[in-house]
Amino acid sequence: MGQNTGCKIKRLEVDTGSRFLVVINPAFASELGVMSNDRVRVRGSKKTITGLVMVSQKIVKNHEVGIPINVMGELEEDVGAVVEIHPAERPVSIEYIKNKMNGMELNTQQIRQIINDIVKKNLSDIELAAYISAIYTKGMTIREIKDLTTAMVETGDVIEFDQEPVFDFHSVGGVPGNKVTLIVVPIIAAAGLMIPKTSSRAISSACGTADIFEVLCNVTFTIPEIKNIAERVGGLIAWGGGVNIAPADDLIIRAEYPLTIDPYPQLIASILAKKRACGVQRLVLDIPVGPNAKVESMKLAKKYSRDLMLVAEELGMRVECAITYGGQPVGRAIGPLLEAREALAALEGKEVANSVVEKSLSIAGMVLEMGGVRAGTGTDHAKEIFESGKARDKMLEIIEAQGGDPDITSDTLEVGKFSEEVISDADGYVVSINNKSIVKVARAAGAPAKKGGGILLEKKMGMKVDRGEVIYTIFSDSKTRLDDAVKLANRLKPVDVEGMVLEKVMPGGRVF
Amino acid sequence: MGQNTGCKIKRLEVDTGSRFLVVINPAFASELGVMSNDRVRVRGSKKTITGLVMVSQKIVKNHEVGIPINVMGELEEDVGAVVEIHPAERPVSIEYIKNKMNGMELNTQQIRQIINDIVKKNLSDIELAAYISAIYTKGMTIREIKDLTTAMVETGDVIEFDQEPVFDFHSVGGVPGNKVTLIVVPIIAAAGLMIPKTSSRAISSACGTADIFEVLCNVTFTIPEIKNIAERVGGLIAWGGGVNIAPADDLIIRAEYPLTIDPYPQLIASILAKKRACGVQRLVLDIPVGPNAKVESMKLAKKYSRDLMLVAEELGMRVECAITYGGQPVGRAIGPLLEAREALAALEGKEVANSVVEKSLSIAGMVLEMGGVRAGTGTDHAKEIFESGKARDKMLEIIEAQGGDPDITSDTLEVGKFSEEVISDADGYVVSINNKSIVKVARAAGAPAKKGGGILLEKKMGMKVDRGEVIYTIFSDSKTRLDDAVKLANRLKPVDVEGMVLEKVMPGGRVF
Repeated sequence: MGQNTGCKIKRLEVDTGSRFLVVINPAFASELGVMSNDRVRVRGSKKTITGLVMVSQKIVKNHEVGIPINVMGELEEDVGAVVEIHPAERPVSIEYIKNKMNGMELNTQQIRQIINDIVKKNLSDIELAAYISAIYTKGMTIREIKDLTTAMVETGDVIEFDQEPVFDFHSVGGVPGNKVTLIVVPIIAAAGLMIPKTSSRAISSACGTADIFEVLCNVTFTIPEIKNIAERVGGLIAWGGGVNIAPADDLIIRAEYPLTIDPYPQLIASILAKKRACGVQRLVLDIPVGPNAKVESMKLAKKYSRDLMLVAEELGMRVECAITYGGQPVGRAIGPLLEAREALAALEGKEVANSVVEKSLSIAGMVLEMGGVRAGTGTDHAKEIFESGKARDKMLEIIEAQGGDPDITSDTLEVGKFSEEVISDADGYVVSINNKSIVKVARAAGAPAKKGGGILLEKKMGMKVDRGEVIYTIFSDSKTRLDDAVKLANRLKPVDVEGMVLEKVMPGGRVF
Repeated sequence: MGQNTGCKIKRLEVDTGSRFLVVINPAFASELGVMSNDRVRVRGSKKTITGLVMVSQKIVKNHEVGIPINVMGELEEDVGAVVEIHPAERPVSIEYIKNKMNGMELNTQQIRQIINDIVKKNLSDIELAAYISAIYTKGMTIREIKDLTTAMVETGDVIEFDQEPVFDFHSVGGVPGNKVTLIVVPIIAAAGLMIPKTSSRAISSACGTADIFEVLCNVTFTIPEIKNIAERVGGLIAWGGGVNIAPADDLIIRAEYPLTIDPYPQLIASILAKKRACGVQRLVLDIPVGPNAKVESMKLAKKYSRDLMLVAEELGMRVECAITYGGQPVGRAIGPLLEAREALAALEGKEVANSVVEKSLSIAGMVLEMGGVRAGTGTDHAKEIFESGKARDKMLEIIEAQGGDPDITSDTLEVGKFSEEVISDADGYVVSINNKSIVKVARAAGAPAKKGGGILLEKKMGMKVDRGEVIYTIFSDSKTRLDDAVKLANRLKPVDVEGMVLEKVMPGGRVF
């Protein structure tokens, strides 16, 4: 593969996203001695790029190289000109990925190289999927996960605060309705501790914390803005994707998504890398456990907690984990606007579902104890701040600092104008609420993109339901979406109502 | 994901190869509730297609769907018209691939579904790479490999011969210069047995059998043509890629190639599926073993033979394996034209490297014994046919049947007109020939695409070399390529000449 040949750059009106593709025709590929998925280097007058070869008969002529919009960059000036093209070596990290596939432990430099190649978009989809499969099937030691975390931090930007220590709270997710961040953050900030919370948008869930908070104010900030607001107000809730923090994470998630796998080492590194890059030193992690949550068994939740704490310790961070009940949604509201309203209402002292307040206060209590409040009194402390209205005041201060309306109240928020109540056709009790089905219905109703779409549960697990009573209401901004969501709800039946006697077993083994 | 929306089809002047991509913009993706790598179904007036979503800001407007040339098909008539688009489920085989990642055994139907989705191009690169990684790391039982083989056969065309039994010979490859097929096939056909050999082109090697035989005649035939020639002449050497036989194989190889892995179960299934689809009932397999061959240890070669025979038996085929020496090239010539010339010269009774003739006769002998020749006398039988000139006559008959010149001789073949001799700068012995480096130099000289490029070895392993003697000659059709190949040869030094005493170990442990 030592060929060195001239070719003409042709602009292709396509955007291949994070894929760095260049297109040549079969004759030219053969002349260069390359195949699809090999790499070539194209030397423009200002810049040299390395691209993955896509061999295509129809788009380019012999001795032409087609360059998509996203790969073009400074090659633009060379469009139509003859430039040099030659085969390039494949990245060395492919060898390291193979080593992992073969069950070998990777050293610090090898892990660093893989993450570096991912961030530089040097790996193709095939190679990225092989990396994910390899660590999914072969796992990583605590040392490897630590190195992976460090590599993810170092290949992106970091936030350095002047104040210390930096506190944070994070939920590993998987349980719908989990708006507790909107209550925890103002409590902690009101207590005088700094909590610059970065959060995510929904990928497959009904909404992420960033999607919820966006209902109330802006969530996209630069690093200096985040630093400024946090140091001035004590807390903020920003979208983590708005800054270049641990950029490997999004690129890896993109390839995990179609496989719906979450390799264990990557899961740990992903959380800790983002927190570390944000300068976090003390972190409380919420791990919801339950059927249809991200973590389904207590055993796995414990392993997870232990490993998270071990890796964090290696990185000089202090982490404590709260294993929480994730068997049904937290609170009653699911969907950006409905959840923002429920959280605001709680802070305003209105009556909301017990689970929301209880969970928020327990977690805030853990953070406060990490901040110096006497062990065993954290929750009481949090409750005091919450009930005194100081948390609400702080919340409005944060909303104002993030460009929102400081006079906002839960009453002023308008949910989706189309709604339909789902009615029970029998007497009984709620025996199960399927998280995944709830999410599907909420998404069909428009969440997370359409803020007003979602679900409001009237009945939760164990509650008595009479025939004709409302079990839950579906909200949407559009009639079509509402109809789709209702249709889906009728098919999936996310809330199960049964008579108290579920099954009768008669002598002789007959089952009614 | 229950959305159902209208959109306008836009023709995209790109060819995404085996990838079935459709392009929509971020706003429309959010409206549909889909992300990159999700699937959507586009319902045209004549045809409905399912494509993988690529989200791109720049190419399409909201409520437009961009359709690449290769995906277009009958949607062409709907360009500019408003058609229906809605999210589609991901293929169920992704779940089966995850099961395999988790170490589970797959059943017949699950394997069939995976292969079916591969052939229908329902899987993305990420999903295909996950399949390959999964069977690479977790392996397969004999039963699973059998099912995999059957699925690969059933998802393509098959050849059914009227005559029985059908014989064949196949080399698992990895050793350069392995032109023995060109000698084995005419011997077997001359003995009256039918051997319709399908062979491959080079992927990463210097040349495949199809590349070599193409020097002498056409190798691309339809199934009826293959059937006709084989039944009329007794033998042929066709390119397997010219027919739709076990099409899953090429699609899987495309994804294996960038990772340079060859999952063991896939390797076995791939060979047996192609042979079974060609109606082969009795098969001799050549497994070259040696450093830098595909199979590097005797132990692995034996496991390989055993498993190949077990799977073949399950399929009702009889397979015998020849584990051969693969530590250096077979014969002296590497490259399409040089190898065709060496094989013809052997058949013409000219003196050629011993290794070529010996290997060919042993293998032909094994095939003859499978065809009824008394055990232990196969090689003698083969030798008789070879030396009598009958094999050569049959070869010319085959060449004619495949549209070549029946008067061709080794003398009339013209190799690359540029050449350079590589000279030894010391007295010594050839202590090693690196197969992989030999291949790289031959490829730099133009093989396999440029037929005249390649290498002719003057000295082989163990031979004495005097200073100033030629070790090998590089041939090429172009001066530039020749220079590149010579440069590469100087860097890689594929042939190692050393004094007889390689290392002196002195008392006290000093090494000179």
